[in-house]
Amino acid sequence: MQTITVALDAMGGDFGPRVTVPAAVQALSHFPELKVILIGDRDLITSQLSRIGYIPNSRLSIKHSDRTISNTERPSQALRNSNGSSMKLAIDSVADESADACVSGGNTGALMALSRFRLKLLPGIERPALVSALPTANGNKTWMLDLGANVSCDADTLFQFAVMGSALAEQHLARTPKVAILNIGEEDIKGNDLVKRCSELLSETEAVDYVGYVEGDQLLHDSADVVVCDGFVGNVCLKTTEGVAHLFIDKLKSQLGSSGIKAWIARKLFGGLMDELKKLNPDQYNGASLLGLRGIVIKSHGSADVSAVVNAIGEAVHEVKRQVPSRISDRLEAVLLERHY
Amino acid sequence: MQTITVALDAMGGDFGPRVTVPAAVQALSHFPELKVILIGDRDLITSQLSRIGYIPNSRLSIKHSDRTISNTERPSQALRNSNGSSMKLAIDSVADESADACVSGGNTGALMALSRFRLKLLPGIERPALVSALPTANGNKTWMLDLGANVSCDADTLFQFAVMGSALAEQHLARTPKVAILNIGEEDIKGNDLVKRCSELLSETEAVDYVGYVEGDQLLHDSADVVVCDGFVGNVCLKTTEGVAHLFIDKLKSQLGSSGIKAWIARKLFGGLMDELKKLNPDQYNGASLLGLRGIVIKSHGSADVSAVVNAIGEAVHEVKRQVPSRISDRLEAVLLERHY
Repeated sequence: MQTITVALDAMGGDFGPRVTVPAAVQALSHFPELKVILIGDRDLITSQLSRIGYIPNSRLSIKHSDRTISNTERPSQALRNSNGSSMKLAIDSVADESADACVSGGNTGALMALSRFRLKLLPGIERPALVSALPTANGNKTWMLDLGANVSCDADTLFQFAVMGSALAEQHLARTPKVAILNIGEEDIKGNDLVKRCSELLSETEAVDYVGYVEGDQLLHDSADVVVCDGFVGNVCLKTTEGVAHLFIDKLKSQLGSSGIKAWIARKLFGGLMDELKKLNPDQYNGASLLGLRGIVIKSHGSADVSAVVNAIGEAVHEVKRQVPSRISDRLEAVLLERHY
Repeated sequence: MQTITVALDAMGGDFGPRVTVPAAVQALSHFPELKVILIGDRDLITSQLSRIGYIPNSRLSIKHSDRTISNTERPSQALRNSNGSSMKLAIDSVADESADACVSGGNTGALMALSRFRLKLLPGIERPALVSALPTANGNKTWMLDLGANVSCDADTLFQFAVMGSALAEQHLARTPKVAILNIGEEDIKGNDLVKRCSELLSETEAVDYVGYVEGDQLLHDSADVVVCDGFVGNVCLKTTEGVAHLFIDKLKSQLGSSGIKAWIARKLFGGLMDELKKLNPDQYNGASLLGLRGIVIKSHGSADVSAVVNAIGEAVHEVKRQVPSRISDRLEAVLLERHY
């Protein structure tokens, strides 16, 4: 069996080792091929390990770091001051090949800047993108990118996002994914110059199965497997989806959760529905990928709990197995060839 | 009592006179000061009126038009070919002051272009904006603009949206509204150049109560009374909200709506909750305003039903009563003075 080593930034995220350490231990039991390097304050990590009665062994090692990057640090500051930080050491371990992938719940801008600086971009890629899978009404997934790494994009960048997103989704779906552009109407005349130009580029390529525009209200209805947009729109859209989902779930919970006969009946009747609705909240899916790099970097939600961090580690394992960066690279090469001949 | 005359494009919207005619009749009984001019095919309108047994009188008149503007027509085509259409006649009646406001459920781009051409912009306004109220978790409203009239904006335009949205919301709230910019983070360093520059402009003015950035997941949580963004982002955000709300409501309905004892108990227990959730779907609120014009133009949803069109007429009545265009004009003048001294 191939061994897969994941470097986990143990200090990243709102809860640090209290969440990342038990998540690493759970992930080891989920994925028999996995090894984890926990990077962070050795004392804090050790005390969390002993709290859950786990003894470090050949599958779990600790790499000490006494520095963290705060959430308020700008990417440019992070680039200057990151040496020895848990996030930087996690990325370093991918660069020097002591790990196959890294996972961090820390500052997204810093993670993006450091990854780009240390791992470099794939040929043909101008900017890395943040991609994540949204749950759909029918129990499927839609991959959306960019989710906030690039606040403004040109049509070429959006085109590259489409190629990268398609290559990633294909490794999950095992079929050619349908790719759409997020727009404010389905007709050709709708939208801004960016989406119109990108639509032309996608119509001309054989590298992705482009199906046209999709609107915000169709996002969770399987109208496409991959949806591309600039990082500003993508981030607003993702957070809006999370916000509305939370609101509805909270309203329901307030009925199901209270005590008394009504709540008891409600739980009996709607326990299943509640579970189904919870699955429709995108923030249940953890593990956004930074695509376009010469290496695998997974961003975990800052507020992720133990099972969510296990999911993020799972995404890292999956991408290593399916060699996602080289799949993207192959696809980009095909596009370049197509343009030359 | 002041009489308020509203010109209603009877042919606009997916259902035409079948919906607009009964809506006009209902609105007349809701608003004692209201007069309606129904503009469209006289035969179709008359047959709908006789179907509901209503006899035209001094409060309801018909203006014949045998032309409509289709939903696929581009704004530029509409400008050339609109003469005699029901939408154009409705706008004309505001321009020649035979009506105080007009309401149409037709082609949004055409409505915007024709209104701008025929009614002209207020001084200090470069582009009109489409604004609507979103319901919030606590039963309040948040006005959001632009919702799709302007697919790309500069910081000055966004600033004007803030001033106009604030003037409109104040007429509903009877207090100074809190104004925010939709962004992908709450920290100052977040966002694209557009929002950063607009944030500077809003920080410098006394004309609006600017409270900073708001993220997508905070939209329905009363973090601001007015939220500004460009039309692309606003439209995606609104449609995403509607899409997620629909999805959750449909899932619930499928439990409440089925027959049998479970559904009966569910309806008894959760009828109220269902009503509450339905109110959180923004498309329950009909009547988006085109702001920045020298006249009142209300856009009704294409798919609006009778009570939704009544709401749109109600919004027109409210804006006439509160003289919204001149309130906006006053506010813009204050901004100009502020910049000069």
